[in-house]
Amino acid sequence: MTAEQLADRLRISIGDKAVVTDPDILNSHRNDHATFCSAGTPLLLVRPASTAEVSEVLRAAGEAGVPVVTQGARTGLSGAANAIDGCILLSTSRMNQILEIDVEDQVAVVQPGVINADLSRAVLAKGLFYPPDPSSWEMSTIGGNIATNAGGLCCVKYGVTGDFVRGLEVVLASGEVVRMGRRTAKGVAGYDLTSLIVGSEGTLGVVTEATLALRPEPEAALTAAATFTSAEQGLAAAAAIMAAGLQPSLLEFLDGATARAIQNYRDMGLPSNVGSLLIAQSDRGLRAVDDVAEMARICTEAGAIEVAEASDAEESRMLLEARRLVNPALEPLGATLVDDVAVPRKRLVDLLDGITAIATKYDVQIFCPGHVGDGNMHPTVVFDRDNPAAEERALQAFGAVMELGLALGGTITGEHGIGKLKRQWLEQELGPVALTLHRRLKTAFDPTNLLNPDKLLHPH
Amino acid sequence: MTAEQLADRLRISIGDKAVVTDPDILNSHRNDHATFCSAGTPLLLVRPASTAEVSEVLRAAGEAGVPVVTQGARTGLSGAANAIDGCILLSTSRMNQILEIDVEDQVAVVQPGVINADLSRAVLAKGLFYPPDPSSWEMSTIGGNIATNAGGLCCVKYGVTGDFVRGLEVVLASGEVVRMGRRTAKGVAGYDLTSLIVGSEGTLGVVTEATLALRPEPEAALTAAATFTSAEQGLAAAAAIMAAGLQPSLLEFLDGATARAIQNYRDMGLPSNVGSLLIAQSDRGLRAVDDVAEMARICTEAGAIEVAEASDAEESRMLLEARRLVNPALEPLGATLVDDVAVPRKRLVDLLDGITAIATKYDVQIFCPGHVGDGNMHPTVVFDRDNPAAEERALQAFGAVMELGLALGGTITGEHGIGKLKRQWLEQELGPVALTLHRRLKTAFDPTNLLNPDKLLHPH
Repeated sequence: MTAEQLADRLRISIGDKAVVTDPDILNSHRNDHATFCSAGTPLLLVRPASTAEVSEVLRAAGEAGVPVVTQGARTGLSGAANAIDGCILLSTSRMNQILEIDVEDQVAVVQPGVINADLSRAVLAKGLFYPPDPSSWEMSTIGGNIATNAGGLCCVKYGVTGDFVRGLEVVLASGEVVRMGRRTAKGVAGYDLTSLIVGSEGTLGVVTEATLALRPEPEAALTAAATFTSAEQGLAAAAAIMAAGLQPSLLEFLDGATARAIQNYRDMGLPSNVGSLLIAQSDRGLRAVDDVAEMARICTEAGAIEVAEASDAEESRMLLEARRLVNPALEPLGATLVDDVAVPRKRLVDLLDGITAIATKYDVQIFCPGHVGDGNMHPTVVFDRDNPAAEERALQAFGAVMELGLALGGTITGEHGIGKLKRQWLEQELGPVALTLHRRLKTAFDPTNLLNPDKLLHPH
Repeated sequence: MTAEQLADRLRISIGDKAVVTDPDILNSHRNDHATFCSAGTPLLLVRPASTAEVSEVLRAAGEAGVPVVTQGARTGLSGAANAIDGCILLSTSRMNQILEIDVEDQVAVVQPGVINADLSRAVLAKGLFYPPDPSSWEMSTIGGNIATNAGGLCCVKYGVTGDFVRGLEVVLASGEVVRMGRRTAKGVAGYDLTSLIVGSEGTLGVVTEATLALRPEPEAALTAAATFTSAEQGLAAAAAIMAAGLQPSLLEFLDGATARAIQNYRDMGLPSNVGSLLIAQSDRGLRAVDDVAEMARICTEAGAIEVAEASDAEESRMLLEARRLVNPALEPLGATLVDDVAVPRKRLVDLLDGITAIATKYDVQIFCPGHVGDGNMHPTVVFDRDNPAAEERALQAFGAVMELGLALGGTITGEHGIGKLKRQWLEQELGPVALTLHRRLKTAFDPTNLLNPDKLLHPH
């Protein structure tokens, strides 16, 4: 089957307008938000509108032997959605319906192209809460969140995307449609296929519908923020907050370098000797006031320079503002490579010390904000993109941070995933036996290696 | 290799005392707690003391072509741990060490033979909480809880076993040792092998170590209990409690038949016209008093005959006593077949109506206690074991309840699993495509079908 024959077949089965061959549009869909990930030139972009149409696309692709890369909003940070030469890009953008919000059973059923923020707002209007809140939530899709098992700021209390996925409809590489999981709160019928699809980065099947658990709407969060002269003090305060059982609904850390970059970018009143900044929230209703006072007390005891407590939602928003400025503040400083290692909380001091040593060794700047309650940090290597030597050193530092995370008993990726960017380090984290199991699972779902074939694992 | 040669090889590799051939001991290890599940005659019982010894056992079994059935405390309710003719029973009883309780990171690392209650008490002594609390918790092992993804009373707030399993060490059928998952709160490196092992009933590998998430110790729970003249009223009150966002830490329902059986067994002061009994708890600390008052108000509004609120832990225990008497109260009435269907909460009224119709059709008694907050009920068919016709009708009713659960959008098993008892209904719940995926996954992990070969799926 030639490319033109394949396009014609797809135009007949899913409609003219759903098959895009315009080179400019194809070019604009080659990449997700990962830096340093090569992308190929796609053959076609298709926008199926239903499960049956997804099935048609996969059957046609299978017969033509053309690989398929599924794309949501392409906000991923590891290249999982990058095009492969000669592939079909399968966009879920037209499958964007919230099919049901069941208030009594606290469940939503959605198509994969629904934007996270649209779902979050729709359920909030019914007094419910969909917690997963990746930074991309205003743009990213539920399908993409599932494919990457996206995290976010409120994971520290509520968990990640996978914790809210109860059931899925998935189209396999064969074009067969399979439902997995359940709608009920509990269920142990057979193997947990649902969790296997979550985080599989489009390599095992295409999600066409998701049944998601919701929670009762939380009460408004109150916030405390504290500055310290050292990173160690901020980390010690974070550990003490977690140990105290205060169940923070957010616990974010900025190292001194990041805090100073933000202060340079916009005057947030941060002291010039700031060594770290900690922001903590509680959404435990009546108890939140006491929680925040206790968090503030813990920070003071840990040696804080200054502690601020918000008494209402607006003040809380203000205190969170510094966290929101991390990306804008770092952007003017150069190109960035963002790691997302997670380590046991008690190894965070060693992680930060090790990162300082790595920055020195490779002569790069590394900023270190992160979701400290989860031990999930975002060491960010900033460098001059126009300097090839600096870029090479940055890449080496990026890898060294992952190796440090593994050495500290952690993982190379807490929330961004493997995609194309981290395949070699995944092999290191898994070891040979788990790697073999990965390849066998891939084959069990996709025997001809049709779906996103060069992602997550190196081609065999 | 003859049986005697296999035993000799194992005696050399794991020690004389770890290899049991005494027919009486073998006989006493043939069954778990499931009723109506046939069990075969094992060849050997082995009690390895380490991961390396488990590996030795699986290698020897593989070479001899002898199937292996892993056993914890054999408290399962679906026959997953039942012997197969000519198998090796692999008991985890000697691998019963709590290897680590990490207070700072709120993680425990345990061997599979640790009793749930031993772990729960050990972490409580350090101010931490391991929530999964199956009724068998004083006897059952963490390995067995993982193999069945065990639930319990507090799932309604805290989730099931799988929600607390972060990482596993597993010995594959090949004897290879593989580590999967992580110790950190978050992690998305590769496919979620850990969730695939959870609930796989010993068919994919032998768990030799588990890394478990812990929580801060909850505050003491307070309790409300209410009686109603009908099942509908009790179910409506339960739905209203869930909808109110009160986050009950326990929400249990007894239908009228069960409540009356308990009252006959022991005078609990339940009215003779009781149509249902609802028990609800809150462990939200200072807020628990208000929660319980609100739960009581909801019950009164739903038409309760009587509502009791506990003002302390002792009164709470008293109110829970009726729930604890379900099994002793039903036991004298005959043999039992316990279902564990879960349905969306709003279909519970239909489930109970349908069960009444099933009881009439098959001329059996069906009692209906359950974890109503999860929609997970335990319809219990009680019949005269000495009457083969009654037994046959009971089995038909047992199956009809599962089919009803599926028809209502639910699952055949909320927490007991498939084992040997429910394989035919699993095929119905999965459908042909998911069933094929199950068989491929089994082959990916265990190509020669060595591990618990006739459980979960029918032999192919």
